[in-house]
Amino acid sequence: MHYPSHLEKLIQTLRKLPGVGSKSAERYAFEMLDWSQEELNKMGRIIAEIPEKISKCLSCGCLKSESECHFCQPKREEPKVLCILAYPKDAFAIESTHEYKGLYHVLGKLLSPLDGITPSDLEIPKLLDRIEKHEIKEVILALDSTLEGDATALYLKRVLQERPVQVSRLAFGIPMGSSIDYVDGGTLARAFAFRSKY
Amino acid sequence: MHYPSHLEKLIQTLRKLPGVGSKSAERYAFEMLDWSQEELNKMGRIIAEIPEKISKCLSCGCLKSESECHFCQPKREEPKVLCILAYPKDAFAIESTHEYKGLYHVLGKLLSPLDGITPSDLEIPKLLDRIEKHEIKEVILALDSTLEGDATALYLKRVLQERPVQVSRLAFGIPMGSSIDYVDGGTLARAFAFRSKY
Repeated sequence: MHYPSHLEKLIQTLRKLPGVGSKSAERYAFEMLDWSQEELNKMGRIIAEIPEKISKCLSCGCLKSESECHFCQPKREEPKVLCILAYPKDAFAIESTHEYKGLYHVLGKLLSPLDGITPSDLEIPKLLDRIEKHEIKEVILALDSTLEGDATALYLKRVLQERPVQVSRLAFGIPMGSSIDYVDGGTLARAFAFRSKY
Repeated sequence: MHYPSHLEKLIQTLRKLPGVGSKSAERYAFEMLDWSQEELNKMGRIIAEIPEKISKCLSCGCLKSESECHFCQPKREEPKVLCILAYPKDAFAIESTHEYKGLYHVLGKLLSPLDGITPSDLEIPKLLDRIEKHEIKEVILALDSTLEGDATALYLKRVLQERPVQVSRLAFGIPMGSSIDYVDGGTLARAFAFRSKY
Protein backbone atom coordinates (compact mmCIF):
# COMPACT_ATOMS: atom_id res chain seq x y z
CA MET A 1 0.00 0.00 0.00
CA HIS A 2 1.71 3.16 -1.20
CA TYR A 3 0.94 6.75 -0.35
CA PRO A 4 -0.62 8.81 -3.16
CA SER A 5 2.21 9.79 -5.53
CA HIS A 6 2.12 13.51 -4.72
CA LEU A 7 2.29 12.74 -1.00
CA GLU A 8 5.30 10.52 -1.70
CA LYS A 9 6.95 13.40 -3.62
CA LEU A 10 6.25 15.76 -0.71
CA ILE A 11 7.81 13.31 1.76
CA GLN A 12 10.89 12.90 -0.45
CA THR A 13 11.41 16.65 -0.78
CA LEU A 14 11.03 17.16 3.00
CA ARG A 15 13.60 14.42 3.62
CA LYS A 16 16.22 16.64 2.02
CA LEU A 17 16.10 18.89 5.10
CA PRO A 18 19.02 18.21 7.44
CA GLY A 19 18.34 15.57 10.09
CA VAL A 20 14.89 14.74 8.71
CA GLY A 21 14.31 11.02 8.26
CA SER A 22 11.28 9.32 6.76
CA LYS A 23 9.26 9.35 10.01
CA SER A 24 9.66 13.10 10.52
CA ALA A 25 9.06 13.81 6.82
CA GLU A 26 5.81 11.80 6.98
CA ARG A 27 4.74 13.66 10.10
CA TYR A 28 5.39 17.03 8.43
CA ALA A 29 3.65 15.95 5.21
CA PHE A 30 0.49 14.69 6.91
CA GLU A 31 0.28 17.87 8.97
CA MET A 32 0.58 19.93 5.79
CA LEU A 33 -2.38 18.10 4.27
CA ASP A 34 -4.55 19.98 6.76
CA TRP A 35 -3.16 23.41 5.91
CA SER A 36 -5.15 25.91 3.84
CA GLN A 37 -4.29 26.61 0.20
CA GLU A 38 -3.28 30.10 1.34
CA GLU A 39 -0.78 28.83 3.93
CA LEU A 40 0.69 26.34 1.45
CA ASN A 41 1.02 28.99 -1.26
CA LYS A 42 2.74 31.29 1.20
CA MET A 43 5.25 28.65 2.25
CA GLY A 44 5.86 27.61 -1.36
CA ARG A 45 6.48 31.20 -2.39
CA ILE A 46 8.83 31.94 0.52
CA ILE A 47 10.90 28.87 -0.39
CA ALA A 48 11.07 29.63 -4.12
CA GLU A 49 12.04 33.27 -3.45
CA ILE A 50 15.04 32.45 -1.23
CA PRO A 51 17.77 33.09 -3.85
CA GLU A 52 16.14 36.33 -4.97
CA LYS A 53 15.63 37.75 -1.46
CA ILE A 54 18.72 36.55 0.41
CA SER A 55 22.23 36.85 -0.92
CA LYS A 56 25.74 36.50 0.37
CA CYS A 57 27.91 39.60 0.54
CA LEU A 58 30.54 39.30 -2.22
CA SER A 59 33.12 40.86 0.07
CA CYS A 60 32.74 39.16 3.50
CA GLY A 61 30.44 36.22 2.65
CA CYS A 62 27.84 37.08 5.32
CA LEU A 63 24.12 37.09 4.52
CA LYS A 64 22.46 40.30 3.46
CA SER A 65 18.96 41.25 2.43
CA GLU A 66 19.42 44.91 1.43
CA SER A 67 21.92 46.26 -1.06
CA GLU A 68 24.36 47.14 1.75
CA CYS A 69 25.97 44.45 3.89
CA HIS A 70 25.39 45.07 7.59
CA PHE A 71 28.62 43.27 8.51
CA CYS A 72 30.80 45.30 6.11
CA GLN A 73 29.56 48.71 7.23
CA PRO A 74 32.41 51.21 7.37
CA LYS A 75 31.33 52.23 10.87
CA ARG A 76 32.49 49.02 12.55
CA GLU A 77 34.36 50.01 15.73
CA GLU A 78 37.42 47.84 15.16
CA PRO A 79 37.97 47.72 11.40
CA LYS A 80 41.47 46.28 11.73
CA VAL A 81 40.37 43.01 13.33
CA LEU A 82 39.08 40.18 11.13
CA CYS A 83 37.09 37.21 12.43
CA ILE A 84 37.22 34.12 10.20
CA LEU A 85 34.06 31.97 10.25
CA ALA A 86 33.06 28.74 8.60
CA TYR A 87 29.39 29.58 7.93
CA PRO A 88 27.27 32.74 7.52
CA LYS A 89 25.11 31.65 10.45
CA ASP A 90 28.04 31.96 12.87
CA ALA A 91 28.19 35.73 12.32
CA PHE A 92 24.71 36.15 13.84
CA ALA A 93 25.70 34.09 16.89
CA ILE A 94 28.82 36.22 17.43
CA GLU A 95 27.01 39.54 16.84
CA SER A 96 24.43 38.63 19.47
CA THR A 97 27.16 38.52 22.15
CA HIS A 98 28.06 42.20 21.49
CA GLU A 99 31.66 41.21 22.34
CA TYR A 100 33.13 41.60 18.87
CA LYS A 101 33.27 44.85 16.88
CA GLY A 102 35.52 43.92 13.96
CA LEU A 103 35.03 42.63 10.43
CA TYR A 104 34.06 39.12 9.33
CA HIS A 105 35.26 36.71 6.69
CA VAL A 106 33.13 33.65 5.92
CA LEU A 107 34.96 30.68 4.40
CA GLY A 108 31.73 28.85 3.55
CA LYS A 109 33.34 25.49 4.31
CA LEU A 110 35.90 23.70 6.46
CA LEU A 111 38.71 21.44 5.26
CA SER A 112 37.45 17.89 4.98
CA PRO A 113 39.48 15.57 2.76
CA LEU A 114 36.79 12.86 3.06
CA ASP A 115 34.22 15.22 1.53
CA GLY A 116 36.72 16.41 -1.08
CA ILE A 117 37.15 19.86 0.48
CA THR A 118 40.81 20.84 0.08
CA PRO A 119 42.73 24.10 0.75
CA SER A 120 41.96 25.36 -2.77
CA ASP A 121 38.26 25.48 -1.83
CA LEU A 122 38.95 28.02 0.91
CA GLU A 123 39.75 30.83 -1.57
CA ILE A 124 42.84 31.93 0.35
CA PRO A 125 43.90 34.63 -2.20
CA LYS A 126 40.58 36.42 -1.57
CA LEU A 127 41.21 36.29 2.19
CA LEU A 128 44.78 37.63 1.80
CA ASP A 129 43.51 40.45 -0.43
CA ARG A 130 41.03 41.51 2.23
CA ILE A 131 43.67 41.37 4.96
CA GLU A 132 45.87 43.63 2.88
CA LYS A 133 43.12 45.99 1.75
CA HIS A 134 41.76 46.56 5.27
CA GLU A 135 45.25 46.61 6.86
CA ILE A 136 44.16 43.91 9.30
CA LYS A 137 46.28 43.66 12.46
CA GLU A 138 44.59 40.68 14.12
CA VAL A 139 42.87 37.63 12.69
CA ILE A 140 40.61 35.68 15.07
CA LEU A 141 39.82 32.10 14.03
CA ALA A 142 36.24 31.41 15.19
CA LEU A 143 36.02 27.88 13.85
CA ASP A 144 34.17 24.84 15.18
CA SER A 145 35.88 22.69 17.77
CA THR A 146 35.78 19.66 15.46
CA LEU A 147 38.32 17.74 13.40
CA GLU A 148 37.46 19.88 10.36
CA GLY A 149 37.59 23.10 12.36
CA ASP A 150 40.97 22.16 13.88
CA ALA A 151 42.42 21.22 10.48
CA THR A 152 41.24 24.48 8.92
CA ALA A 153 42.55 26.55 11.84
CA LEU A 154 45.97 24.87 11.58
CA TYR A 155 46.08 25.45 7.83
CA LEU A 156 45.14 29.13 8.16
CA LYS A 157 47.71 29.60 10.93
CA ARG A 158 50.42 28.34 8.55
CA VAL A 159 49.19 30.50 5.68
CA LEU A 160 49.10 33.61 7.87
CA GLN A 161 52.29 33.12 9.91
CA GLU A 162 54.48 34.98 7.42
CA ARG A 163 52.09 37.92 7.24
CA PRO A 164 52.24 40.88 9.62
CA VAL A 165 49.08 39.84 11.47
CA GLN A 166 48.52 38.38 14.90
CA VAL A 167 46.51 35.15 14.67
CA SER A 168 44.39 33.97 17.59
CA ARG A 169 41.74 31.32 18.03
CA LEU A 170 38.67 31.34 20.29
CA ALA A 171 39.36 29.88 23.75
CA PHE A 172 38.49 26.25 24.52
CA GLY A 173 37.22 25.23 27.90
CA ILE A 174 34.26 24.42 30.07
CA PRO A 175 31.00 25.94 28.77
CA MET A 176 29.29 28.38 31.12
CA GLY A 177 26.92 26.75 33.59
CA SER A 178 28.43 23.26 33.23
CA SER A 179 29.22 20.86 36.06
CA ILE A 180 32.68 19.31 35.78
CA ASP A 181 31.33 15.76 35.88
CA TYR A 182 28.99 16.42 32.95
CA VAL A 183 31.67 17.85 30.67
CA ASP A 184 33.12 15.36 28.16
CA GLY A 185 36.73 14.21 28.45
CA GLY A 186 37.98 16.07 25.38
CA THR A 187 36.65 19.38 26.64
CA LEU A 188 38.08 18.76 30.10
CA ALA A 189 41.50 17.88 28.65
CA ARG A 190 41.54 21.12 26.64
CA ALA A 191 40.37 23.09 29.71
CA PHE A 192 43.41 21.71 31.58
CA ALA A 193 45.82 22.43 28.72
CA PHE A 194 44.58 26.03 28.32
CA ARG A 195 44.15 26.74 32.05
CA SER A 196 44.76 30.37 32.97
CA LYS A 197 46.27 32.02 36.03
CA TYR A 198 43.60 32.82 38.60
CA MET B 1 21.36 41.48 15.25
CA HIS B 2 18.43 40.12 13.28
CA TYR B 3 18.41 37.68 10.40
CA PRO B 4 17.54 39.17 7.00
CA SER B 5 13.75 39.57 6.92
CA HIS B 6 13.13 36.89 4.28
CA LEU B 7 15.21 34.41 6.27
CA GLU B 8 13.11 35.27 9.35
CA LYS B 9 9.94 34.62 7.31
CA LEU B 10 11.33 31.27 6.15
CA ILE B 11 12.16 30.27 9.73
CA GLN B 12 8.66 31.27 10.90
CA THR B 13 6.94 29.26 8.17
CA LEU B 14 9.11 26.19 8.91
CA ARG B 15 8.24 26.46 12.61
CA LYS B 16 4.64 25.65 11.72
CA LEU B 17 5.70 22.07 11.00
CA PRO B 18 4.85 19.76 13.91
CA GLY B 19 7.59 19.39 16.50
CA VAL B 20 9.84 21.96 14.81
CA GLY B 21 11.18 24.57 17.25
CA SER B 22 13.28 27.60 16.42
CA LYS B 23 16.59 25.71 16.45
CA SER B 24 15.42 23.08 13.93
CA ALA B 25 13.72 25.72 11.77
CA GLU B 26 16.96 27.71 11.66
CA ARG B 27 18.91 24.60 10.74
CA TYR B 28 16.50 23.80 7.90
CA ALA B 29 16.49 27.42 6.69
CA PHE B 30 20.28 27.80 6.59
CA GLU B 31 20.57 24.50 4.74
CA MET B 32 18.01 25.68 2.19
CA LEU B 33 20.11 28.80 1.50
CA ASP B 34 22.57 26.46 -0.23
CA TRP B 35 19.98 24.77 -2.43
CA SER B 36 19.71 25.57 -6.13
CA GLN B 37 16.87 27.70 -7.48
CA GLU B 38 15.62 24.58 -9.25
CA GLU B 39 15.40 22.53 -6.04
CA LEU B 40 13.69 25.39 -4.21
CA ASN B 41 11.18 25.89 -7.02
CA LYS B 42 10.42 22.17 -7.01
CA MET B 43 9.80 22.08 -3.27
CA GLY B 44 7.71 25.26 -3.42
CA ARG B 45 5.58 23.85 -6.22
CA ILE B 46 5.05 20.49 -4.51
CA ILE B 47 3.86 22.28 -1.36
CA ALA B 48 1.52 24.67 -3.17
CA GLU B 49 0.01 21.83 -5.22
CA ILE B 50 -0.93 19.66 -2.21
CA PRO B 51 -4.66 20.52 -2.17
CA GLU B 52 -4.97 20.05 -5.92
CA LYS B 53 -3.15 16.70 -6.06
CA ILE B 54 -4.21 15.01 -2.82
CA SER B 55 -7.78 14.86 -1.62
CA LYS B 56 -9.78 13.02 1.00
CA CYS B 57 -12.37 10.51 -0.16
CA LEU B 58 -15.79 12.06 0.52
CA SER B 59 -17.10 8.65 1.50
CA CYS B 60 -14.48 7.06 3.80
CA GLY B 61 -12.20 10.04 4.52
CA CYS B 62 -9.02 8.26 3.41
CA LEU B 63 -6.50 9.95 1.12
CA LYS B 64 -6.73 9.47 -2.60
CA SER B 65 -4.79 10.74 -5.57
CA GLU B 66 -6.81 9.34 -8.48
CA SER B 67 -10.51 9.77 -9.06
CA GLU B 68 -11.24 6.41 -7.44
CA CYS B 69 -10.56 5.78 -3.74
CA HIS B 70 -8.35 2.76 -3.22
CA PHE B 71 -9.85 2.11 0.20
CA CYS B 72 -13.48 2.17 -1.02
CA GLN B 73 -12.93 -0.22 -3.93
CA PRO B 74 -15.89 -2.60 -4.31
CA LYS B 75 -13.48 -5.55 -4.42
CA ARG B 76 -12.56 -5.39 -0.72
CA GLU B 77 -12.71 -8.93 0.63
CA GLU B 78 -14.73 -8.18 3.76
CA PRO B 79 -17.10 -5.37 2.80
CA LYS B 80 -19.26 -5.84 5.90
CA VAL B 81 -16.53 -4.94 8.38
CA LEU B 82 -15.78 -1.27 9.10
CA CYS B 83 -12.62 -0.05 10.77
CA ILE B 84 -12.92 3.38 12.42
CA LEU B 85 -9.74 5.46 12.41
CA ALA B 86 -8.79 8.86 13.78
CA TYR B 87 -6.52 9.99 10.92
CA PRO B 88 -6.03 9.16 7.21
CA LYS B 89 -2.44 8.12 7.91
CA ASP B 90 -3.58 5.23 10.10
CA ALA B 91 -5.17 3.49 7.09
CA PHE B 92 -1.75 3.12 5.44
CA ALA B 93 -0.28 1.62 8.62
CA ILE B 94 -3.12 -0.92 8.84
CA GLU B 95 -3.04 -1.78 5.12
CA SER B 96 0.66 -2.54 5.35
CA THR B 97 -0.04 -5.36 7.84
CA HIS B 98 -2.24 -7.18 5.27
CA GLU B 99 -4.34 -8.32 8.25
CA TYR B 100 -7.44 -6.31 7.51
CA LYS B 101 -9.62 -6.63 4.41
CA GLY B 102 -12.66 -4.52 5.30
CA LEU B 103 -13.71 -0.89 4.80
CA TYR B 104 -12.42 2.18 6.60
CA HIS B 105 -14.01 5.24 8.16
CA VAL B 106 -11.78 8.17 9.10
CA LEU B 107 -13.11 10.47 11.82
CA GLY B 108 -10.40 13.09 11.19
CA LYS B 109 -10.22 13.92 14.91
CA LEU B 110 -10.57 12.50 18.41
CA LEU B 111 -12.72 13.87 21.22
CA SER B 112 -10.73 16.43 23.18
CA PRO B 113 -12.78 18.89 25.27
CA LEU B 114 -9.66 20.95 26.00
CA ASP B 115 -9.15 21.56 22.26
CA GLY B 116 -12.88 22.18 21.77
CA ILE B 117 -13.48 18.91 19.92
CA THR B 118 -16.88 17.61 20.98
CA PRO B 119 -19.08 14.71 19.76
CA SER B 120 -20.74 16.94 17.14
CA ASP B 121 -17.34 17.24 15.40
CA LEU B 122 -17.24 13.49 14.78
CA GLU B 123 -20.05 13.59 12.17
CA ILE B 124 -21.84 10.59 13.66
CA PRO B 125 -24.86 10.75 11.26
CA LYS B 126 -22.47 10.22 8.32
CA LEU B 127 -20.94 7.21 10.09
CA LEU B 128 -24.40 5.72 10.84
CA ASP B 129 -25.44 6.24 7.19
CA ARG B 130 -22.41 4.31 5.98
CA ILE B 131 -23.01 1.48 8.48
CA GLU B 132 -26.56 1.20 7.18
CA LYS B 133 -25.72 1.56 3.49
CA HIS B 134 -22.96 -1.06 3.56
CA GLU B 135 -24.91 -3.37 5.95
CA ILE B 136 -21.92 -3.41 8.30
CA LYS B 137 -21.87 -6.36 10.75
CA GLU B 138 -18.73 -5.49 12.71
CA VAL B 139 -17.16 -2.17 13.63
CA ILE B 140 -13.54 -2.25 14.75
CA LEU B 141 -12.33 0.79 16.70
CA ALA B 142 -8.68 1.33 15.73
CA LEU B 143 -8.09 4.41 17.86
CA ASP B 144 -4.99 5.61 19.67
CA SER B 145 -4.31 4.31 23.14
CA THR B 146 -4.49 7.83 24.60
CA LEU B 147 -6.97 9.76 26.72
CA GLU B 148 -8.57 11.16 23.56
CA GLY B 149 -8.63 7.77 21.83
CA ASP B 150 -10.20 6.13 24.90
CA ALA B 151 -12.84 8.87 25.22
CA THR B 152 -13.74 8.60 21.54
CA ALA B 153 -13.91 4.79 21.68
CA LEU B 154 -16.22 4.94 24.70
CA TYR B 155 -18.45 7.49 23.00
CA LEU B 156 -18.69 5.44 19.78
CA LYS B 157 -19.41 2.28 21.79
CA ARG B 158 -22.41 4.02 23.35
CA VAL B 159 -23.62 5.41 20.03
CA LEU B 160 -23.38 1.99 18.36
CA GLN B 161 -24.65 -0.24 21.15
CA GLU B 162 -28.28 -0.01 20.04
CA ARG B 163 -27.40 -0.81 16.44
CA PRO B 164 -27.21 -4.36 15.07
CA VAL B 165 -23.40 -4.27 14.82
CA GLN B 166 -20.71 -5.94 16.85
CA VAL B 167 -18.23 -3.38 18.19
CA SER B 168 -14.66 -4.35 18.98
CA ARG B 169 -11.50 -2.43 19.73
CA LEU B 170 -7.89 -3.29 18.88
CA ALA B 171 -6.16 -5.36 21.58
CA PHE B 172 -3.97 -3.68 24.19
CA GLY B 173 -0.87 -5.35 25.49
CA ILE B 174 2.85 -5.74 25.26
CA PRO B 175 4.29 -4.63 21.89
CA MET B 176 6.12 -7.32 19.92
CA GLY B 177 9.80 -7.62 20.79
CA SER B 178 9.49 -5.86 24.17
CA SER B 179 11.07 -6.94 27.43
CA ILE B 180 8.66 -6.86 30.37
CA ASP B 181 10.89 -4.55 32.40
CA TYR B 182 11.01 -1.97 29.61
CA VAL B 183 7.24 -1.78 29.15
CA ASP B 184 5.59 1.15 30.96
CA GLY B 185 3.24 0.52 33.89
CA GLY B 186 0.06 1.49 32.05
CA THR B 187 0.73 -0.96 29.22
CA LEU B 188 1.59 -3.70 31.69
CA ALA B 189 -1.60 -3.08 33.69
CA ARG B 190 -3.68 -3.33 30.50
CA ALA B 191 -1.77 -6.46 29.45
CA PHE B 192 -2.79 -8.06 32.76
CA ALA B 193 -6.41 -6.91 32.50
CA PHE B 194 -6.76 -8.25 28.93
CA ARG B 195 -4.69 -11.44 29.47
CA SER B 196 -5.83 -14.33 27.31
CA LYS B 197 -5.99 -18.08 27.91
CA TYR B 198 -2.79 -19.73 26.77
